[in-house]
Amino acid sequence: MFGVPVSFTSPLPLADITGRAEACAPGTEVRALPREEAQTLAARLRVIADPTRLRLISMVSAHPGREACVCDLTEPLGLTQGTVSHHLRVLVDAGIFTREQRGTWAYFALVPGAVDALLGEVAAL
Amino acid sequence: MFGVPVSFTSPLPLADITGRAEACAPGTEVRALPREEAQTLAARLRVIADPTRLRLISMVSAHPGREACVCDLTEPLGLTQGTVSHHLRVLVDAGIFTREQRGTWAYFALVPGAVDALLGEVAAL
Repeated sequence: MFGVPVSFTSPLPLADITGRAEACAPGTEVRALPREEAQTLAARLRVIADPTRLRLISMVSAHPGREACVCDLTEPLGLTQGTVSHHLRVLVDAGIFTREQRGTWAYFALVPGAVDALLGEVAAL
Repeated sequence: MFGVPVSFTSPLPLADITGRAEACAPGTEVRALPREEAQTLAARLRVIADPTRLRLISMVSAHPGREACVCDLTEPLGLTQGTVSHHLRVLVDAGIFTREQRGTWAYFALVPGAVDALLGEVAAL
């Protein structure tokens, strides 16, 4: 690199020497995900962006028929029944789980394709 | 409901009358995603569970080469430069965007496969 002449009369970066504008001159029209769609998608992602809800999804998913009794879900999490019920309700409200009462116990099942549909929307961004 | 005899000697629900155990007797071993893995995955999901960051991902993704100048990203979002910079930094720190300084402007590019890898971990739950 020694011996390469340095021009002190031209302290600007190469982009300017070559006549390229310093100002931002976008040549491409930017397509942003519309604000409301982004808000809806973010809210749906926040449903699964929670460690307890991810664990619940993994537990129900590991059960035969991807369905589990609430009585099988509470103890392994080491959380109170009220806390687990709250997270289960969020997952039901989001359409990720269904809830079915059978006698004493409620059973929760994964809605086929619900998580995949959400992930697919992000993948398509 | 009037006229239906009420047994005061058997106040238990039907499940008990029929001999079915009230206690939860899980027949299946439940495999929950380990707590620490769930916390890490949830934190990574929170990065994309934000409307502005989803919009930034969609904008950069729509640019040729999936790379865009910061000067093209700020104005369409209608947010201050500081706010956009914050969100861009979160995306860089999470390994979703790379940042390259070229003269005056910084350029942000999608890391190939980064979002897909995150989505794939959720899909595999």
